[in-house]
Amino acid sequence: MIEKDIEREVIIEKTTIGIDVGGHYIKYGLVSNHKVIEFHRLKTKREDILSSLIYIIEKYKKELISGISIGFPGFVRNGVVTSPPNLPIKNINLKEEIGKIVRFPIVVENDANLYALGEAFYGVGRHHRVVVLLTLGTGVGGGIVIDGKLFTGSIGFASEFGHIVMNTEGPVCGCGMRGCLESYIGADRIIERYKGLLKKGISTSEKNVESVKDIVNAARNGDRLSIYVLNETGIMLGVGISTIINILDPDIVIIGGGIAKARNLILKATKEEVNRRIIRKVPIVVSTLGDKAGLLGGHILLKNGTKPLTFPNSP
Amino acid sequence: MIEKDIEREVIIEKTTIGIDVGGHYIKYGLVSNHKVIEFHRLKTKREDILSSLIYIIEKYKKELISGISIGFPGFVRNGVVTSPPNLPIKNINLKEEIGKIVRFPIVVENDANLYALGEAFYGVGRHHRVVVLLTLGTGVGGGIVIDGKLFTGSIGFASEFGHIVMNTEGPVCGCGMRGCLESYIGADRIIERYKGLLKKGISTSEKNVESVKDIVNAARNGDRLSIYVLNETGIMLGVGISTIINILDPDIVIIGGGIAKARNLILKATKEEVNRRIIRKVPIVVSTLGDKAGLLGGHILLKNGTKPLTFPNSP
Repeated sequence: MIEKDIEREVIIEKTTIGIDVGGHYIKYGLVSNHKVIEFHRLKTKREDILSSLIYIIEKYKKELISGISIGFPGFVRNGVVTSPPNLPIKNINLKEEIGKIVRFPIVVENDANLYALGEAFYGVGRHHRVVVLLTLGTGVGGGIVIDGKLFTGSIGFASEFGHIVMNTEGPVCGCGMRGCLESYIGADRIIERYKGLLKKGISTSEKNVESVKDIVNAARNGDRLSIYVLNETGIMLGVGISTIINILDPDIVIIGGGIAKARNLILKATKEEVNRRIIRKVPIVVSTLGDKAGLLGGHILLKNGTKPLTFPNSP
Repeated sequence: MIEKDIEREVIIEKTTIGIDVGGHYIKYGLVSNHKVIEFHRLKTKREDILSSLIYIIEKYKKELISGISIGFPGFVRNGVVTSPPNLPIKNINLKEEIGKIVRFPIVVENDANLYALGEAFYGVGRHHRVVVLLTLGTGVGGGIVIDGKLFTGSIGFASEFGHIVMNTEGPVCGCGMRGCLESYIGADRIIERYKGLLKKGISTSEKNVESVKDIVNAARNGDRLSIYVLNETGIMLGVGISTIINILDPDIVIIGGGIAKARNLILKATKEEVNRRIIRKVPIVVSTLGDKAGLLGGHILLKNGTKPLTFPNSP
């Protein structure tokens, strides 16, 4: 009996709900003892995200939960989700809303920040002092972990890697400016560039391209236009990462997000570009935790709070 | 008698020699109780910098010194000065060399890093959490102070703001790459641009331009070409600072170095460009400590070491 009680206490202390809200899917599950012990995907109901969050919390209400972490795209500060790109939400104090229905600690944080924390503590970023993560998808996000602590800057605006200026005369970005990194390597831009070259009459084996995934698959089958476009994407990513290295001098740069699945079709060129520009070698590696990184990052943030974090002894 | 002894102890604890080695001048002096109490300039003997350092140390050998800080341009790590731009030095372990002649603590650090520390503790950066400093001169350097601690990245390579990529097709930089920030706003590049426009037949009241100072003076006298060139410099600086803000989200951006003396002839355009690109307001201000910043930064680094720093109660 005593043993069982002790076990329960451990669970009480450590099991957290992790939720990672994306434009297409909400990923969620339970994290216990530094592991994701349950993992699910839910289609994002764009018009009613709060009801999905409540559904998840209700689902686990019989579990012994010690906290909940929610990752959201875009700018998040003090629990307030400002205006996530691609989601019809504006200035919701999510911490307050969720706080009305549960009594355990809640953290609401930018999704890429939680992703970075997850990788820094449980993924390829382990044992590194300065960890930089870039997420490649529709947008380009990122996170910075320094000495095991999330670095979010003065007001939570840091690691907006998508808006590094690559070229003042470059393509117009979603933010209204020209030549941001995102305006070159955001998913839609990769597809646009592909279609643009197609229009110019460059031959390809794959004409029905609807997603970067299609381009990646075509490239894997040897389609030269697809290989070219992904290689060019890799070069631009390399230029952006070079600027990041010149500013942050990280120990490691981790690449996450859907487009990271293209791996060396993009990253070979990226690494070459960085090596050309930066004297010292900085490893550029693909995320190993993928969709679970954000849940694990939320877990460690709940565990350690916002004070300098301590690394768990075992992953 | 007792009182005098106590006074002496205070001096022993707190007086440090500060040395700031530049391409043209070595600035040095004594820092005590958070103040520069003696300040001098010495022409840099480019072929024999070590003898100048020894001269300074000898000069103060009768004082009660508790430490010495030496700032050097370029890459500095663990007391080793690697290859400062514009100085014929390569891989000198300065900490070891100076350690042969003195017994008190020695810190050797990148000059812009010490400058940033000085401003963060004693200058316009006081009471700010995330402080970014850019030094504008022949090269573009910088320093980052986070929560009162110098942030130098993984191996001391951080805050190389001069090599932020502005445009992959831009002018060739001293580093061999194209379109670095320094290739647009380094002192020589500003003069080159001025002369280039002059050759194109654009009229000016000031034809004998040898330095940025000449251009600044001409601009102050209403010369339109000079005003144009400095304005353009300000815009490029603003683009670079926007990228820094997107990555670091600082509380304040401080501008130091000789070219900072142009003040609003450059910085008006800089601020406008940053305001255009960044939603939130980040103050961009000129350094108030100037040549003394590095000595003060060295003083605080000696005082607090490399652990998280504490701010002095009074400046």
